[in-house]
Amino acid sequence: WFVGYSSRHRASQQTLKSNRDPSTAMSEPIRVLVTGAAGQIAYSLLYNLGNGDVFGKNQPLILVLLDITPMMKVLEGVVMEMEDCAFGLLKEVIATDKEEVAFKDIDVAILVGSMPRREGMERKDLLKANVKIFKSQGAALDKYAKKNVKVVVVGNPANTNCLTAAKSAPSIPRSNFSCLTRLDHNRARAQIAKRLQVSANDVKNVIIWGNHSSTQYPDVTHAKVKVQGKECEVYDEVKDDSWLKGEFITTVQQRGAAVIMARKLSSAMSASKAICDHVRDIWYGTGEGEFVSMGVISDGNSYSIPEDLIYSFPVVIKNKCWSFVEGLPINDFSRDKMDLTAKELAEEKETAIEFLASM
Amino acid sequence: WFVGYSSRHRASQQTLKSNRDPSTAMSEPIRVLVTGAAGQIAYSLLYNLGNGDVFGKNQPLILVLLDITPMMKVLEGVVMEMEDCAFGLLKEVIATDKEEVAFKDIDVAILVGSMPRREGMERKDLLKANVKIFKSQGAALDKYAKKNVKVVVVGNPANTNCLTAAKSAPSIPRSNFSCLTRLDHNRARAQIAKRLQVSANDVKNVIIWGNHSSTQYPDVTHAKVKVQGKECEVYDEVKDDSWLKGEFITTVQQRGAAVIMARKLSSAMSASKAICDHVRDIWYGTGEGEFVSMGVISDGNSYSIPEDLIYSFPVVIKNKCWSFVEGLPINDFSRDKMDLTAKELAEEKETAIEFLASM
Repeated sequence: WFVGYSSRHRASQQTLKSNRDPSTAMSEPIRVLVTGAAGQIAYSLLYNLGNGDVFGKNQPLILVLLDITPMMKVLEGVVMEMEDCAFGLLKEVIATDKEEVAFKDIDVAILVGSMPRREGMERKDLLKANVKIFKSQGAALDKYAKKNVKVVVVGNPANTNCLTAAKSAPSIPRSNFSCLTRLDHNRARAQIAKRLQVSANDVKNVIIWGNHSSTQYPDVTHAKVKVQGKECEVYDEVKDDSWLKGEFITTVQQRGAAVIMARKLSSAMSASKAICDHVRDIWYGTGEGEFVSMGVISDGNSYSIPEDLIYSFPVVIKNKCWSFVEGLPINDFSRDKMDLTAKELAEEKETAIEFLASM
Repeated sequence: WFVGYSSRHRASQQTLKSNRDPSTAMSEPIRVLVTGAAGQIAYSLLYNLGNGDVFGKNQPLILVLLDITPMMKVLEGVVMEMEDCAFGLLKEVIATDKEEVAFKDIDVAILVGSMPRREGMERKDLLKANVKIFKSQGAALDKYAKKNVKVVVVGNPANTNCLTAAKSAPSIPRSNFSCLTRLDHNRARAQIAKRLQVSANDVKNVIIWGNHSSTQYPDVTHAKVKVQGKECEVYDEVKDDSWLKGEFITTVQQRGAAVIMARKLSSAMSASKAICDHVRDIWYGTGEGEFVSMGVISDGNSYSIPEDLIYSFPVVIKNKCWSFVEGLPINDFSRDKMDLTAKELAEEKETAIEFLASM
């Protein structure tokens, strides 16, 4: 079934596209898919999308919401609330449990839904269930989506799910796929900001290397902080090597678990915020002198990470294309941590490919 | 306890205040209290506040979060997520279970928390529990808040809770108190928009009269809709008197229940959106030629509604002060419905005053 609303006023729309600045004239609607749309992260995210937080206040949207059949009633309630929010930008909202409807002609896919880990589930079983989902969604991307679709994977294990989807969509460039490590990136900025008693917006160029898991390596070796209007090295300001190499790293790695422990629910608000940051940067580019972290396909060269992994790197984005931030010096401490998380990803990949071959 | 973060960079802040347009230079922080801060509506609302959706992208905020003692751990998780959102506008976040901390020097109070109706609870018991809460919060407003504080009551029964708080804060002008009927207002716009296949932003000047309960009267007699760029009467466009006087009204009245039925959870996203609209309009004023609905103190004159009720009226807002939209012609159909919901409010008030006197 569908729940939709659409506008009959299209006469005033123009095809002017805005670049970095989203506050220009109205554009043609873009078609954005959110999966796991009846879940908690999507509940925050759909608001942000409707509110123009990602694509700007002048970019009309068609939102497509996919979830599994048992969630269709809940999704109906979400669509009712979106109607009641009276979002001017939303030209249409389509709720569906069918991949052929969901992936049709989309410009952006935000894949939030995945199989969650249940009590007593082995790591391998979880991976297998997710390979099945992301193989199917990759094939649907291949068959139905626009060839320039941007695909962002949020559902865990995000890196390997992203790799599975990319491998299952051979007609879409690998570089169009990314997975979310921006939440970890933002958490790292927040920890530094808290320590230095500055605003998190004054901290930039932290790096999350590797897997969106507890082996991730949050690295502030190259990070900057604005202090009294002046850009400084985070290392020079913090002046505490043992904290930066110890508690800071474990705090960021385990932040998700700490939020669950307190809220009794996993992060949704901050996850949604990170998704918005990630997708906005893909669409409008990163700021001058700024790089961000995202899981993208490794090429075997950059930072000596084995090729064909979805690994979180520092990237800059321009004209909707990302590129590696090259040439940052890597010390021995960092090297070990970067290799460790690469090793975990290589193992996940091996298992996933085994499952993929047997399906 | 407190969880807080604050910026040491205040040198660049200026005291320029923006009026309708929030996109001007940085101002001094304002202090905003949200009660029921660990709940679902607040979870959406705190994001919106941090994101600048209410007070603008250049208005720094100090957010004060109040909830009951057993919710402090959950609230800690919410504060962690707010940190991780890296909101540049947030100068400080204070989480507390103490009214004397929560209400101290606040500029805005958004009272979301209230006693929810539990299985087997009589209507009177519910009202009594809420009179107790809002008497206490009114007294705290009286004692600790700035005298020009704007108080918005969301927790149900919102109108009577608002009246209780206002009566318990004699040193604060009655006109500073309002209760939320903007969600109903937005729902009415959305229903009209859906019917006419336009964007909800093209529908304005609907009215919610009376109580935020099932006796509310959603009235589109004076509502306008933009069709092909031209402003038209909703009545002339819909051309279906029996729908407008029947199904339209009951759909809006029962929308909250319909969302609960579908989502299994009450409206949070759309409630938060409506709170943002309401508070933004109080702060920056209503648009030219536009009026909105909010529960405010009746004066006994306007539309012949008995005095001293918090009753939802059409209002315009300028310089942070609301005034009634006067002189709209009221037909017999509307008169009956307006009186019916006034009668319910008068009964609620009588019961509340009885409880207030006995406490």
